[in-house]
Amino acid sequence: MPSPVNPPRGMRDFLPVEKRRRDRVLATIRDVYRSYGFDEIETPVVEDSARLHSGLGGDNEKQVFAVLRRGLDVDDLRKAGAPLDLADLGLRFDLTVPLARFYASHRAELPAVFRAVQVAPVWRAERPQKGRYRQFVQCDIDVLGEAGPLAEIELLTATTAALDALGLTGTHVRVNDRRVLLGLLASWGVAPDATDCALVVVDKLDKIGVDGVAAELVELGVPVDVSATALRQLADADWTLTDAPWLDRAAFAELEALRDAVPGVDLRFDPTLVRGMGYYTGTIFEVAHPDVPYSLGGGGRYDGMIGRFLGQDVPAAGFSLGFERLVDLVDLAAGDAADGLVLLHDRQVPPAALARLRTDALRRHGRVRLDRRAKNVGVQLAGLAALGYASFAFVRTGDETLDELEVKPVA
Amino acid sequence: MPSPVNPPRGMRDFLPVEKRRRDRVLATIRDVYRSYGFDEIETPVVEDSARLHSGLGGDNEKQVFAVLRRGLDVDDLRKAGAPLDLADLGLRFDLTVPLARFYASHRAELPAVFRAVQVAPVWRAERPQKGRYRQFVQCDIDVLGEAGPLAEIELLTATTAALDALGLTGTHVRVNDRRVLLGLLASWGVAPDATDCALVVVDKLDKIGVDGVAAELVELGVPVDVSATALRQLADADWTLTDAPWLDRAAFAELEALRDAVPGVDLRFDPTLVRGMGYYTGTIFEVAHPDVPYSLGGGGRYDGMIGRFLGQDVPAAGFSLGFERLVDLVDLAAGDAADGLVLLHDRQVPPAALARLRTDALRRHGRVRLDRRAKNVGVQLAGLAALGYASFAFVRTGDETLDELEVKPVA
Repeated sequence: MPSPVNPPRGMRDFLPVEKRRRDRVLATIRDVYRSYGFDEIETPVVEDSARLHSGLGGDNEKQVFAVLRRGLDVDDLRKAGAPLDLADLGLRFDLTVPLARFYASHRAELPAVFRAVQVAPVWRAERPQKGRYRQFVQCDIDVLGEAGPLAEIELLTATTAALDALGLTGTHVRVNDRRVLLGLLASWGVAPDATDCALVVVDKLDKIGVDGVAAELVELGVPVDVSATALRQLADADWTLTDAPWLDRAAFAELEALRDAVPGVDLRFDPTLVRGMGYYTGTIFEVAHPDVPYSLGGGGRYDGMIGRFLGQDVPAAGFSLGFERLVDLVDLAAGDAADGLVLLHDRQVPPAALARLRTDALRRHGRVRLDRRAKNVGVQLAGLAALGYASFAFVRTGDETLDELEVKPVA
Repeated sequence: MPSPVNPPRGMRDFLPVEKRRRDRVLATIRDVYRSYGFDEIETPVVEDSARLHSGLGGDNEKQVFAVLRRGLDVDDLRKAGAPLDLADLGLRFDLTVPLARFYASHRAELPAVFRAVQVAPVWRAERPQKGRYRQFVQCDIDVLGEAGPLAEIELLTATTAALDALGLTGTHVRVNDRRVLLGLLASWGVAPDATDCALVVVDKLDKIGVDGVAAELVELGVPVDVSATALRQLADADWTLTDAPWLDRAAFAELEALRDAVPGVDLRFDPTLVRGMGYYTGTIFEVAHPDVPYSLGGGGRYDGMIGRFLGQDVPAAGFSLGFERLVDLVDLAAGDAADGLVLLHDRQVPPAALARLRTDALRRHGRVRLDRRAKNVGVQLAGLAALGYASFAFVRTGDETLDELEVKPVA
């Protein structure tokens, strides 16, 4: 039954070298988050379909991989009003909706302020393209139950520490507050009921530029010159922007206090920063690295959402690192010292002798691999070097003890 | 929108203490497998639906969570001949079918003998019951491309070493060969085309006993007294069973050689051991621990299967640990020394001061958590002890340096 043997469209297999690299980057991130007092949790990869389609996911809700109910028959197909009627579960599209569900389920077992880490895959049925996958890993931290700025401080210090640990130093964080944005939009004459639409447009600034945004805002009643002039003036806005008449003073003062509380973080005020998700209610931030044009992650305060399934308000703030973008930037090779011994043998060497040799070698080398000697030993050794092996030895029939073998470095 | 907030039926959330325990058990298993030269790989959680229903999964194929095609409309529902016609993907029910697909896809990039580790969740829509979950973790190792006994030696030594590392010493491994079973069935007069059915029946020995098995075998033409007598005699069979006229001598000699090659493993010959899956072709084994009545895992040689998607024969043998059963047996507490400091603060302490204190404390304690002081500090400290924290200190407004704090042990 030869058949196409690739992974499903837009998804990836990870071979040993890449798998190891990914796991080491994830371990580094986990270790830092743990050192900042965050606790890792895990939820199932599927959630109830109704929950995934409850309006908290924005456009992501359209990209759910839906899971068919079990035990359906043809009659059920005939009676269904829409395909989704046949689904009771779906693969999660983010880690925030599951966190809200988790928190509602386990509130009584969690501390008053709960700092969660989630490092796990999510799924979106996007059109596959370079750097975009249908299964990808997110690294989220969230502080639930903390209404004050301590939540933002925790998120910013832990995230930048994680990036530092990965060797991604020199990052800066753009920060804004949804209230600052609302003041800006109001100063342009955007009607309150058009605010959400206007935010979606301003969020495209990186992609379509000032002229593109201004052109789209016209449809929301904002004259081209008003928004374009303002956006051009705000392109280099920084902490000195205290005199703008539309600036929400209270929100800005909170951002200044946040800046002063995290002296180790390069925090830059950007009044045009939007962040896509509709659920943000206060601070929003996005972390950038000088080497790449895209953000490495972002987050913000979303006080209205975690309580949705619980039926009561829960203050919350979170930060999500885009792992798939990170992992390609990181060079952790230096930290992964080679270790272990490879015993290269011919087919004729008795298996029992190999097993004995390995038992001896494990004591001395900690990690021992039995490999049949390949025709091209050079290629084989290069592969073993990539897997992090330090040394190798040829084993021939009759070799009985480790001392008979000549151990050489792999690379 | 208050609504039921439990995880989907038969699936589980993991809170911090349990998540940490599971991850430490998994890390121990991974480390041992790595020390034996196995390489971890990862595949997507979904595979093509047709592949999951290609006959390699036995009864598991009936328990697939099927994923709806995207972009379906009501017309598609009307035209579908069966629910599965609407699915293009499914959640994997084991790690062996994905491994076969992975191997077919990446054969050229892998060594001639490939030792794979997979530690990952699988999904089965089983009726939920105690100890059975619809999402659960499997830990598989497989040796692909090795036709000789070295594969079995690697699997047995690595698996028992992993169990030893978990503190589960005293395990033994029941071993058999499918060829031995076929000889036994032939001696009872089972027709060749009834062999698979007869194996399914004998496999129930643990559950329904000798009389139950003998009764079911009657329908396959085996007189009750023939099978019952034989099964009773074989209940205590061991390596001395060399004179049985039905015994496949070649297969038995190979098992003896395997036993002699792994002196550190307590390998016990059991001619009634079947293992459920139809794809086994040679050696089969199951690992048991004196403390529990169920097996901790098992595996065997399955030479016909890995090549199914590749279109050529690939010798293969694998061993799967049942992680969910293991994790409840393991007490790793001793290995997880408490570390870190918790700064318990009141709501009044300025966030910036807390952030500064933590920065100082991180240098000295490696891991620092900020927690608001709870009303019941005793309960709070017990929770922190469970999370592995070593010490704590109260922070009050005005505390500016770590030296002003009195650091006490958590437990």
